[in-house]
Amino acid sequence: MCQLLGMNCNTPTDVRFSFSGFTQRAGNTGDHTDGWGIAFFEDKGLRHFVGYERAIDSPIAKLIREYPIKSRNVIAHIRKATQGAVSLQNCHPFVRELWGRNWVFAHNGDLKGFAPKLHAHFHPVGNTDSEQAFCWILQELWKSHAGLPSVQELTHTLRELARRISPHGTFNFLLSNGEALWAHATTHLCYIERRHPFAQAHLSDEDLAVDFARETTPQDRVAIIVTAPLTKNETWTSIQSGELKVFVQGECLPL
Amino acid sequence: MCQLLGMNCNTPTDVRFSFSGFTQRAGNTGDHTDGWGIAFFEDKGLRHFVGYERAIDSPIAKLIREYPIKSRNVIAHIRKATQGAVSLQNCHPFVRELWGRNWVFAHNGDLKGFAPKLHAHFHPVGNTDSEQAFCWILQELWKSHAGLPSVQELTHTLRELARRISPHGTFNFLLSNGEALWAHATTHLCYIERRHPFAQAHLSDEDLAVDFARETTPQDRVAIIVTAPLTKNETWTSIQSGELKVFVQGECLPL
Repeated sequence: MCQLLGMNCNTPTDVRFSFSGFTQRAGNTGDHTDGWGIAFFEDKGLRHFVGYERAIDSPIAKLIREYPIKSRNVIAHIRKATQGAVSLQNCHPFVRELWGRNWVFAHNGDLKGFAPKLHAHFHPVGNTDSEQAFCWILQELWKSHAGLPSVQELTHTLRELARRISPHGTFNFLLSNGEALWAHATTHLCYIERRHPFAQAHLSDEDLAVDFARETTPQDRVAIIVTAPLTKNETWTSIQSGELKVFVQGECLPL
Repeated sequence: MCQLLGMNCNTPTDVRFSFSGFTQRAGNTGDHTDGWGIAFFEDKGLRHFVGYERAIDSPIAKLIREYPIKSRNVIAHIRKATQGAVSLQNCHPFVRELWGRNWVFAHNGDLKGFAPKLHAHFHPVGNTDSEQAFCWILQELWKSHAGLPSVQELTHTLRELARRISPHGTFNFLLSNGEALWAHATTHLCYIERRHPFAQAHLSDEDLAVDFARETTPQDRVAIIVTAPLTKNETWTSIQSGELKVFVQGECLPL
Protein backbone atom coordinates (compact mmCIF):
# COMPACT_ATOMS: atom_id res chain seq x y z
CA MET A 1 0.00 0.00 0.00
CA CYS A 2 1.03 3.57 -0.53
CA GLN A 3 0.41 6.85 1.19
CA LEU A 4 -1.17 10.02 -0.18
CA LEU A 5 -0.81 13.70 0.70
CA GLY A 6 -2.79 16.55 -0.80
CA MET A 7 -2.98 20.28 -0.13
CA ASN A 8 -5.58 22.75 -1.40
CA CYS A 9 -5.41 26.44 -0.39
CA ASN A 10 -6.83 29.84 -1.23
CA THR A 11 -3.35 31.38 -1.39
CA PRO A 12 -0.05 29.84 -2.57
CA THR A 13 1.29 27.98 0.46
CA ASP A 14 4.55 26.26 1.30
CA VAL A 15 4.00 22.51 1.78
CA ARG A 16 7.43 21.78 3.32
CA PHE A 17 6.17 21.14 6.86
CA SER A 18 3.66 18.48 5.75
CA PHE A 19 5.93 16.98 3.07
CA SER A 20 8.75 16.65 5.60
CA GLY A 21 6.61 14.62 8.02
CA PHE A 22 5.08 12.66 5.16
CA THR A 23 8.41 11.55 3.66
CA GLN A 24 9.54 10.18 7.06
CA ARG A 25 7.12 7.36 6.26
CA ALA A 26 9.31 6.44 3.26
CA GLY A 27 11.95 4.65 5.32
CA ASN A 28 11.87 6.02 8.87
CA THR A 29 8.38 5.70 10.35
CA GLY A 30 6.99 3.61 7.45
CA ASP A 31 8.16 1.21 4.73
CA HIS A 32 6.86 3.03 1.65
CA THR A 33 10.20 2.85 -0.10
CA ASP A 34 9.42 1.95 -3.74
CA GLY A 35 9.29 5.48 -5.13
CA TRP A 36 7.81 8.86 -4.45
CA GLY A 37 6.43 11.84 -6.30
CA ILE A 38 4.96 15.29 -5.86
CA ALA A 39 3.23 17.73 -8.20
CA PHE A 40 2.75 21.45 -7.50
CA PHE A 41 0.36 23.58 -9.51
CA GLU A 42 1.40 27.18 -10.13
CA ASP A 43 -1.53 28.73 -11.94
CA LYS A 44 -2.14 26.25 -14.79
CA GLY A 45 1.53 25.25 -14.86
CA LEU A 46 2.96 22.29 -13.01
CA ARG A 47 6.16 21.27 -11.27
CA HIS A 48 6.30 17.47 -11.23
CA PHE A 49 8.97 15.47 -9.40
CA VAL A 50 9.18 11.68 -9.25
CA GLY A 51 11.81 9.16 -8.22
CA TYR A 52 12.10 5.45 -7.57
CA GLU A 53 14.50 5.87 -4.64
CA ARG A 54 13.31 6.11 -1.05
CA ALA A 55 12.01 9.66 -0.55
CA ILE A 56 14.20 10.07 2.54
CA ASP A 57 17.35 9.31 0.45
CA SER A 58 16.48 11.25 -2.72
CA PRO A 59 18.45 14.49 -3.26
CA ILE A 60 15.49 15.93 -5.15
CA ALA A 61 13.04 15.13 -2.32
CA LYS A 62 15.58 16.67 0.06
CA LEU A 63 15.63 19.85 -2.04
CA ILE A 64 11.82 19.99 -1.93
CA ARG A 65 11.89 19.66 1.88
CA GLU A 66 14.29 22.63 2.02
CA TYR A 67 13.22 24.92 -0.83
CA PRO A 68 9.86 26.72 -0.48
CA ILE A 69 7.71 25.99 -3.50
CA LYS A 70 4.40 27.77 -2.94
CA SER A 71 1.32 26.29 -4.50
CA ARG A 72 -2.46 26.27 -4.15
CA ASN A 73 -2.78 22.60 -5.14
CA VAL A 74 -0.29 19.86 -4.33
CA ILE A 75 -0.48 16.06 -4.59
CA ALA A 76 2.26 13.82 -3.20
CA HIS A 77 2.67 10.05 -2.99
CA ILE A 78 5.05 7.52 -1.49
CA ARG A 79 4.88 4.08 -2.98
CA LYS A 80 4.98 0.54 -1.71
CA ALA A 81 4.62 -1.43 -4.92
CA THR A 82 1.69 -3.86 -5.24
CA GLN A 83 1.26 -3.92 -9.04
CA GLY A 84 3.89 -2.80 -11.57
CA ALA A 85 7.69 -2.80 -11.26
CA VAL A 86 9.70 -0.21 -9.34
CA SER A 87 10.43 2.20 -12.20
CA LEU A 88 10.02 5.87 -13.03
CA GLN A 89 6.99 5.36 -15.25
CA ASN A 90 5.17 3.67 -12.34
CA CYS A 91 5.73 6.52 -9.87
CA HIS A 92 2.70 8.56 -8.86
CA PRO A 93 1.40 11.19 -9.26
CA PHE A 94 0.53 10.76 -12.93
CA VAL A 95 -0.11 13.75 -15.19
CA ARG A 96 -2.22 14.21 -18.31
CA GLU A 97 -3.65 17.18 -20.17
CA LEU A 98 -7.39 17.43 -20.84
CA TRP A 99 -9.25 20.51 -22.14
CA GLY A 100 -6.03 22.54 -21.96
CA ARG A 101 -5.56 21.84 -18.22
CA ASN A 102 -3.11 19.63 -16.41
CA TRP A 103 -4.68 16.82 -14.36
CA VAL A 104 -2.75 15.11 -11.57
CA PHE A 105 -3.70 11.79 -9.97
CA ALA A 106 -2.30 9.58 -7.21
CA HIS A 107 -3.78 6.34 -5.86
CA ASN A 108 -3.39 4.23 -2.76
CA GLY A 109 -4.84 0.76 -2.99
CA ASP A 110 -5.09 -2.24 -5.19
CA LEU A 111 -7.62 -2.88 -7.97
CA LYS A 112 -8.32 -6.48 -8.97
CA GLY A 113 -9.65 -7.47 -12.38
CA PHE A 114 -9.91 -3.86 -13.52
CA ALA A 115 -9.27 -3.89 -17.27
CA PRO A 116 -11.36 -1.09 -18.76
CA LYS A 117 -11.55 -0.48 -22.46
CA LEU A 118 -9.29 2.48 -23.21
CA HIS A 119 -10.67 3.40 -26.61
CA ALA A 120 -9.99 7.13 -26.50
CA HIS A 121 -6.61 8.85 -26.26
CA PHE A 122 -5.38 8.26 -22.72
CA HIS A 123 -3.09 5.25 -22.42
CA PRO A 124 -0.84 4.17 -19.55
CA VAL A 125 2.90 4.68 -19.99
CA GLY A 126 3.72 2.32 -17.12
CA ASN A 127 1.94 -0.83 -15.99
CA THR A 128 0.10 0.01 -12.78
CA ASP A 129 -3.59 -0.48 -12.07
CA SER A 130 -3.50 3.13 -10.83
CA GLU A 131 -2.45 4.76 -14.10
CA GLN A 132 -5.00 2.60 -15.92
CA ALA A 133 -7.73 3.87 -13.59
CA PHE A 134 -6.57 7.47 -14.16
CA CYS A 135 -6.64 7.04 -17.96
CA TRP A 136 -10.13 5.57 -17.75
CA ILE A 137 -11.38 8.41 -15.51
CA LEU A 138 -10.08 11.04 -17.97
CA GLN A 139 -11.56 9.16 -20.90
CA GLU A 140 -14.96 9.07 -19.21
CA LEU A 141 -14.75 12.75 -18.16
CA TRP A 142 -13.93 13.64 -21.76
CA LYS A 143 -16.90 11.56 -23.02
CA SER A 144 -19.25 13.11 -20.46
CA HIS A 145 -18.46 16.80 -21.05
CA ALA A 146 -17.80 18.83 -24.21
CA GLY A 147 -15.35 21.16 -22.44
CA LEU A 148 -14.14 21.95 -18.95
CA PRO A 149 -17.29 21.83 -16.76
CA SER A 150 -17.88 23.47 -13.38
CA VAL A 151 -16.42 21.91 -10.24
CA GLN A 152 -19.94 20.82 -9.25
CA GLU A 153 -20.52 19.01 -12.53
CA LEU A 154 -17.08 17.41 -12.41
CA THR A 155 -17.73 16.23 -8.86
CA HIS A 156 -21.02 14.68 -9.91
CA THR A 157 -19.34 12.75 -12.77
CA LEU A 158 -16.33 11.75 -10.64
CA ARG A 159 -18.59 10.40 -7.90
CA GLU A 160 -20.29 8.17 -10.45
CA LEU A 161 -16.95 7.00 -11.93
CA ALA A 162 -15.48 6.25 -8.48
CA ARG A 163 -18.57 4.15 -7.75
CA ARG A 164 -17.90 2.08 -10.89
CA ILE A 165 -14.22 1.41 -10.03
CA SER A 166 -14.66 0.83 -6.28
CA PRO A 167 -16.00 -2.77 -6.51
CA HIS A 168 -12.55 -3.75 -7.87
CA GLY A 169 -10.76 -3.06 -4.59
CA THR A 170 -9.23 -0.31 -2.53
CA PHE A 171 -9.52 3.02 -4.29
CA ASN A 172 -8.22 5.88 -2.17
CA PHE A 173 -7.23 8.61 -4.60
CA LEU A 174 -6.41 12.31 -4.94
CA LEU A 175 -7.07 14.20 -8.18
CA SER A 176 -6.56 17.86 -9.05
CA ASN A 177 -6.80 20.10 -12.10
CA GLY A 178 -5.23 23.09 -10.35
CA GLU A 179 -8.63 24.54 -9.48
CA ALA A 180 -10.11 21.87 -7.20
CA LEU A 181 -8.77 18.83 -5.39
CA TRP A 182 -10.90 15.69 -5.13
CA ALA A 183 -10.33 13.00 -2.50
CA HIS A 184 -12.01 9.59 -2.60
CA ALA A 185 -11.67 7.06 0.22
CA THR A 186 -12.19 3.33 0.46
CA THR A 187 -10.14 2.74 3.60
CA HIS A 188 -7.82 5.46 4.94
CA LEU A 189 -7.99 9.16 4.11
CA CYS A 190 -8.53 12.09 6.46
CA TYR A 191 -8.34 15.86 6.25
CA ILE A 192 -8.02 19.06 8.21
CA GLU A 193 -8.99 22.61 7.30
CA ARG A 194 -6.73 25.20 8.86
CA ARG A 195 -7.95 28.78 9.09
CA HIS A 196 -7.78 31.82 11.37
CA PRO A 197 -6.99 31.69 14.28
CA PHE A 198 -4.00 29.52 13.31
CA ALA A 199 -2.24 27.53 16.02
CA GLN A 200 0.94 25.55 16.47
CA ALA A 201 1.14 22.04 14.99
CA HIS A 202 3.45 19.18 15.97
CA LEU A 203 4.36 16.52 13.41
CA SER A 204 3.66 12.89 14.36
CA ASP A 205 6.52 11.45 12.28
CA GLU A 206 9.42 13.66 13.37
CA ASP A 207 10.18 16.13 16.10
CA LEU A 208 9.14 19.27 14.30
CA ALA A 209 6.60 21.97 15.14
CA VAL A 210 5.45 25.02 13.24
CA ASP A 211 3.49 28.03 14.43
CA PHE A 212 1.13 28.66 11.53
CA ALA A 213 0.06 31.99 13.05
CA ARG A 214 3.52 33.34 12.15
CA GLU A 215 3.38 32.06 8.56
CA THR A 216 -0.13 33.11 7.55
CA THR A 217 -2.57 35.98 7.21
CA PRO A 218 -6.09 35.87 8.74
CA GLN A 219 -7.56 35.32 5.26
CA ASP A 220 -5.59 32.14 4.53
CA ARG A 221 -7.36 28.81 4.32
CA VAL A 222 -5.46 25.57 3.87
CA ALA A 223 -6.87 22.03 3.61
CA ILE A 224 -4.54 19.05 4.04
CA ILE A 225 -5.71 15.57 3.00
CA VAL A 226 -3.58 12.58 3.96
CA THR A 227 -3.67 8.79 4.47
CA ALA A 228 -2.99 9.07 8.23
CA PRO A 229 -2.92 12.24 10.39
CA LEU A 230 0.35 14.17 10.09
CA THR A 231 0.10 16.02 13.39
CA LYS A 232 -0.57 14.81 16.90
CA ASN A 233 -2.23 17.90 18.41
CA GLU A 234 -4.94 18.61 15.83
CA THR A 235 -8.28 16.96 15.05
CA TRP A 236 -8.43 15.26 11.67
CA THR A 237 -11.71 14.25 10.01
CA SER A 238 -11.94 10.81 8.39
CA ILE A 239 -13.36 10.53 4.89
CA GLN A 240 -15.89 7.69 5.00
CA SER A 241 -15.62 4.63 2.78
CA GLY A 242 -17.15 5.39 -0.62
CA GLU A 243 -17.14 9.14 -0.03
CA LEU A 244 -15.78 11.68 -2.55
CA LYS A 245 -14.87 15.07 -1.09
CA VAL A 246 -13.97 18.15 -3.12
CA PHE A 247 -11.77 20.99 -1.86
CA VAL A 248 -11.73 24.47 -3.38
CA GLN A 249 -9.90 27.52 -1.99
CA GLY A 250 -8.87 25.55 1.11
CA GLU A 251 -12.38 24.42 2.03
CA CYS A 252 -14.25 21.15 1.77
CA LEU A 253 -17.34 22.02 -0.29
CA PRO A 254 -20.71 20.93 1.15
CA LEU A 255 -21.94 18.75 -1.72
CA MET B 1 14.83 33.74 -29.08
CA CYS B 2 15.64 30.73 -26.98
CA GLN B 3 18.30 28.06 -26.94
CA LEU B 4 17.95 24.30 -27.25
CA LEU B 5 20.03 21.39 -26.01
CA GLY B 6 19.42 17.71 -26.78
CA MET B 7 21.27 14.51 -26.01
CA ASN B 8 20.68 11.07 -27.50
CA CYS B 9 22.88 8.09 -26.46
CA ASN B 10 23.11 4.34 -26.65
CA THR B 11 23.76 4.05 -22.91
CA PRO B 12 22.41 6.18 -20.03
CA THR B 13 24.73 9.18 -19.86
CA ASP B 14 25.23 12.05 -17.46
CA VAL B 15 24.37 15.38 -19.15
CA ARG B 16 25.87 17.62 -16.41
CA PHE B 17 28.87 18.81 -18.46
CA SER B 18 26.73 20.03 -21.37
CA PHE B 19 23.92 21.35 -19.17
CA SER B 20 26.39 23.32 -17.09
CA GLY B 21 27.82 25.13 -20.13
CA PHE B 22 24.35 25.56 -21.61
CA THR B 23 22.85 27.22 -18.52
CA GLN B 24 25.65 29.82 -18.48
CA ARG B 25 23.76 31.30 -21.42
CA ALA B 26 20.84 31.97 -19.06
CA GLY B 27 22.39 35.06 -17.48
CA ASN B 28 26.19 34.84 -17.81
CA THR B 29 27.18 34.39 -21.45
CA GLY B 30 23.66 34.97 -22.83
CA ASP B 31 20.38 36.71 -21.93
CA HIS B 32 17.99 33.74 -22.06
CA THR B 33 16.56 34.54 -18.66
CA ASP B 34 12.78 34.02 -18.97
CA GLY B 35 12.64 30.42 -17.83
CA TRP B 36 14.29 27.09 -18.35
CA GLY B 37 13.42 23.42 -18.46
CA ILE B 38 14.86 19.97 -18.93
CA ALA B 39 13.35 16.52 -19.42
CA PHE B 40 15.21 13.23 -18.93
CA PHE B 41 13.82 9.93 -20.17
CA GLU B 42 14.54 6.88 -18.04
CA ASP B 43 13.10 3.98 -20.01
CA LYS B 44 9.55 5.17 -20.78
CA GLY B 45 9.45 7.28 -17.61
CA LEU B 46 10.32 10.95 -17.45
CA ARG B 47 11.87 13.44 -15.07
CA HIS B 48 10.66 16.89 -16.05
CA PHE B 49 11.92 20.11 -14.45
CA VAL B 50 10.82 23.62 -15.38
CA GLY B 51 11.17 27.06 -13.82
CA TYR B 52 10.57 30.67 -14.74
CA GLU B 53 13.64 31.94 -12.91
CA ARG B 54 17.01 32.35 -14.61
CA ALA B 55 18.55 28.88 -14.90
CA ILE B 56 21.76 30.13 -13.30
CA ASP B 57 19.80 31.26 -10.18
CA SER B 58 17.41 28.33 -9.86
CA PRO B 59 18.14 25.93 -6.95
CA ILE B 60 16.61 23.10 -8.97
CA ALA B 61 18.79 23.81 -12.03
CA LYS B 62 21.75 23.95 -9.63
CA LEU B 63 20.86 20.52 -8.26
CA ILE B 64 20.70 19.16 -11.83
CA ARG B 65 24.15 20.58 -12.58
CA GLU B 66 25.48 18.76 -9.49
CA TYR B 67 23.49 15.53 -9.29
CA PRO B 68 24.15 12.90 -12.00
CA ILE B 69 20.89 11.96 -13.71
CA LYS B 70 21.73 9.42 -16.39
CA SER B 71 19.51 9.27 -19.42
CA ARG B 72 19.51 8.13 -23.04
CA ASN B 73 17.34 11.03 -24.22
CA VAL B 74 17.40 14.56 -22.81
CA ILE B 75 15.87 17.82 -24.05
CA ALA B 76 16.65 21.16 -22.37
CA HIS B 77 15.62 24.74 -23.12
CA ILE B 78 16.39 28.22 -21.89
CA ARG B 79 13.83 30.83 -22.76
CA LYS B 80 13.84 34.39 -23.93
CA ALA B 81 10.13 35.13 -24.25
CA THR B 82 8.79 36.23 -27.63
CA GLN B 83 5.16 35.04 -27.37
CA GLY B 84 3.39 34.18 -24.08
CA ALA B 85 3.99 35.53 -20.59
CA VAL B 86 6.83 34.45 -18.31
CA SER B 87 5.01 31.69 -16.40
CA LEU B 88 5.42 28.03 -15.57
CA GLN B 89 2.90 26.83 -18.15
CA ASN B 90 4.92 28.59 -20.89
CA CYS B 91 8.23 26.94 -20.01
CA HIS B 92 9.63 24.38 -22.44
CA PRO B 93 10.01 21.47 -22.81
CA PHE B 94 6.35 20.51 -23.09
CA VAL B 95 5.18 16.96 -22.41
CA ARG B 96 2.22 14.93 -23.67
CA GLU B 97 1.35 11.24 -23.81
CA LEU B 98 0.50 9.60 -27.15
CA TRP B 99 0.15 5.81 -27.77
CA GLY B 100 1.27 5.13 -24.18
CA ARG B 101 4.58 6.99 -24.65
CA ASN B 102 5.75 10.32 -23.31
CA TRP B 103 6.61 12.92 -25.97
CA VAL B 104 8.81 15.90 -25.17
CA PHE B 105 9.13 19.03 -27.32
CA ALA B 106 11.10 22.29 -27.15
CA HIS B 107 11.17 25.08 -29.72
CA ASN B 108 13.41 28.00 -30.54
CA GLY B 109 11.92 30.56 -32.86
CA ASP B 110 8.81 32.53 -33.54
CA LEU B 111 5.78 31.45 -35.58
CA LYS B 112 3.59 34.16 -37.10
CA GLY B 113 -0.05 33.62 -38.00
CA PHE B 114 0.07 29.97 -37.01
CA ALA B 115 -3.41 29.13 -35.71
CA PRO B 116 -4.04 25.49 -36.61
CA LYS B 117 -7.36 23.80 -35.91
CA LEU B 118 -6.86 21.68 -32.80
CA HIS B 119 -9.86 19.41 -33.21
CA ALA B 120 -8.45 16.32 -31.51
CA HIS B 121 -7.39 15.98 -27.89
CA PHE B 122 -4.16 17.94 -27.55
CA HIS B 123 -4.68 21.49 -26.32
CA PRO B 124 -2.17 24.04 -25.05
CA VAL B 125 -2.11 24.71 -21.31
CA GLY B 126 -0.13 27.93 -21.77
CA ASN B 127 -0.26 30.50 -24.56
CA THR B 128 2.88 30.06 -26.65
CA ASP B 129 3.08 29.47 -30.38
CA SER B 130 5.46 26.61 -29.48
CA GLU B 131 3.02 24.55 -27.41
CA GLN B 132 0.38 25.12 -30.10
CA ALA B 133 2.76 23.73 -32.73
CA PHE B 134 3.53 20.73 -30.49
CA CYS B 135 -0.19 20.00 -29.98
CA TRP B 136 -0.77 20.22 -33.72
CA ILE B 137 2.16 17.90 -34.48
CA LEU B 138 0.86 15.26 -32.05
CA GLN B 139 -2.66 15.60 -33.44
CA GLU B 140 -1.38 15.05 -36.97
CA LEU B 141 0.84 12.12 -35.91
CA TRP B 142 -2.16 10.53 -34.22
CA LYS B 143 -4.29 11.06 -37.35
CA SER B 144 -1.55 9.62 -39.60
CA HIS B 145 -0.82 6.39 -37.69
CA ALA B 146 -3.05 3.89 -35.90
CA GLY B 147 -0.42 3.13 -33.26
CA LEU B 148 3.24 3.84 -32.53
CA PRO B 149 4.98 3.53 -35.93
CA SER B 150 8.67 2.84 -36.61
CA VAL B 151 11.22 5.63 -36.27
CA GLN B 152 11.49 5.72 -40.09
CA GLU B 153 7.75 6.21 -40.54
CA LEU B 154 7.63 8.82 -37.79
CA THR B 155 10.50 10.69 -39.40
CA HIS B 156 8.72 10.68 -42.74
CA THR B 157 5.55 12.15 -41.19
CA LEU B 158 7.45 14.67 -39.05
CA ARG B 159 9.39 15.92 -42.06
CA GLU B 160 6.10 16.61 -43.84
CA LEU B 161 4.62 18.34 -40.76
CA ALA B 162 7.71 20.50 -40.25
CA ARG B 163 7.44 21.58 -43.89
CA ARG B 164 3.86 22.74 -43.27
CA ILE B 165 4.75 24.80 -40.17
CA SER B 166 8.04 26.27 -41.44
CA PRO B 167 6.52 28.97 -43.70
CA HIS B 168 5.19 30.63 -40.50
CA GLY B 169 8.66 31.55 -39.24
CA THR B 170 11.65 30.19 -37.38
CA PHE B 171 11.07 26.60 -36.37
CA ASN B 172 14.12 25.08 -34.71
CA PHE B 173 12.83 22.25 -32.53
CA LEU B 174 13.80 19.12 -30.62
CA LEU B 175 11.35 16.26 -30.12
CA SER B 176 11.80 12.90 -28.40
CA ASN B 177 9.65 9.93 -27.43
CA GLY B 178 12.44 8.27 -25.41
CA GLU B 179 13.44 6.08 -28.35
CA ALA B 180 14.57 8.64 -30.93
CA LEU B 181 15.36 12.35 -30.89
CA TRP B 182 14.38 14.54 -33.83
CA ALA B 183 16.00 17.89 -34.56
CA HIS B 184 14.64 20.37 -37.10
CA ALA B 185 16.47 23.57 -38.03
CA THR B 186 15.41 26.81 -39.65
CA THR B 187 18.33 28.95 -38.47
CA HIS B 188 20.68 27.65 -35.75
CA LEU B 189 21.12 24.04 -34.69
CA CYS B 190 24.27 21.92 -34.78
CA TYR B 191 25.35 18.53 -33.48
CA ILE B 192 28.27 16.35 -32.62
CA GLU B 193 28.54 12.56 -32.34
CA ARG B 194 31.06 11.44 -29.76
CA ARG B 195 32.37 7.88 -29.91
CA HIS B 196 35.54 5.88 -29.30
CA PRO B 197 38.30 7.12 -29.13
CA PHE B 198 36.90 9.77 -26.78
CA ALA B 199 38.91 12.93 -26.20
CA GLN B 200 38.94 15.90 -23.86
CA ALA B 201 36.39 18.67 -24.39
CA HIS B 202 36.54 22.30 -23.21
CA LEU B 203 33.33 24.25 -22.67
CA SER B 204 32.94 27.54 -24.56
CA ASP B 205 30.76 29.18 -21.90
CA GLU B 206 32.76 28.48 -18.74
CA ASP B 207 36.20 27.31 -17.80
CA LEU B 208 35.48 23.61 -17.55
CA ALA B 209 36.96 20.60 -19.31
CA VAL B 210 36.12 16.91 -19.17
CA ASP B 211 38.07 13.91 -20.37
CA PHE B 212 35.35 11.72 -21.89
CA ALA B 213 37.80 8.81 -22.21
CA ARG B 214 37.67 8.49 -18.40
CA GLU B 215 33.88 8.55 -18.25
CA THR B 216 32.99 6.16 -21.05
CA THR B 217 33.43 2.66 -22.42
CA PRO B 218 34.55 2.04 -26.05
CA GLN B 219 30.97 1.03 -26.96
CA ASP B 220 29.39 4.34 -25.87
CA ARG B 221 27.93 6.69 -28.46
CA VAL B 222 26.58 10.11 -27.53
CA ALA B 223 25.04 12.73 -29.82
CA ILE B 224 24.64 16.30 -28.59
CA ILE B 225 22.41 18.73 -30.49
CA VAL B 226 22.50 22.41 -29.54
CA THR B 227 21.70 25.91 -30.80
CA ALA B 228 25.38 26.98 -30.78
CA PRO B 229 28.47 24.79 -30.21
CA LEU B 230 29.10 24.05 -26.51
CA THR B 231 32.82 23.26 -26.82
CA LYS B 232 35.66 25.15 -28.46
CA ASN B 233 37.96 22.26 -29.40
CA GLU B 234 35.55 19.97 -31.28
CA THR B 235 33.98 20.12 -34.74
CA TRP B 236 30.23 20.62 -34.74
CA THR B 237 28.05 19.94 -37.81
CA SER B 238 25.37 22.48 -38.71
CA ILE B 239 21.88 21.25 -39.47
CA GLN B 240 20.81 22.98 -42.68
CA SER B 241 17.74 25.17 -42.92
CA GLY B 242 14.68 23.00 -43.52
CA GLU B 243 16.48 19.81 -42.53
CA LEU B 244 15.08 17.25 -40.05
CA LYS B 245 17.65 14.94 -38.48
CA VAL B 246 16.85 11.89 -36.37
CA PHE B 247 19.15 10.45 -33.72
CA VAL B 248 18.88 6.89 -32.39
CA GLN B 249 21.37 5.16 -30.05
CA GLY B 250 23.71 8.16 -30.22
CA GLU B 251 23.91 8.28 -34.03
CA CYS B 252 22.42 10.51 -36.67
CA LEU B 253 20.51 8.12 -38.96
CA PRO B 254 21.20 8.42 -42.70
CA LEU B 255 17.69 9.10 -43.97
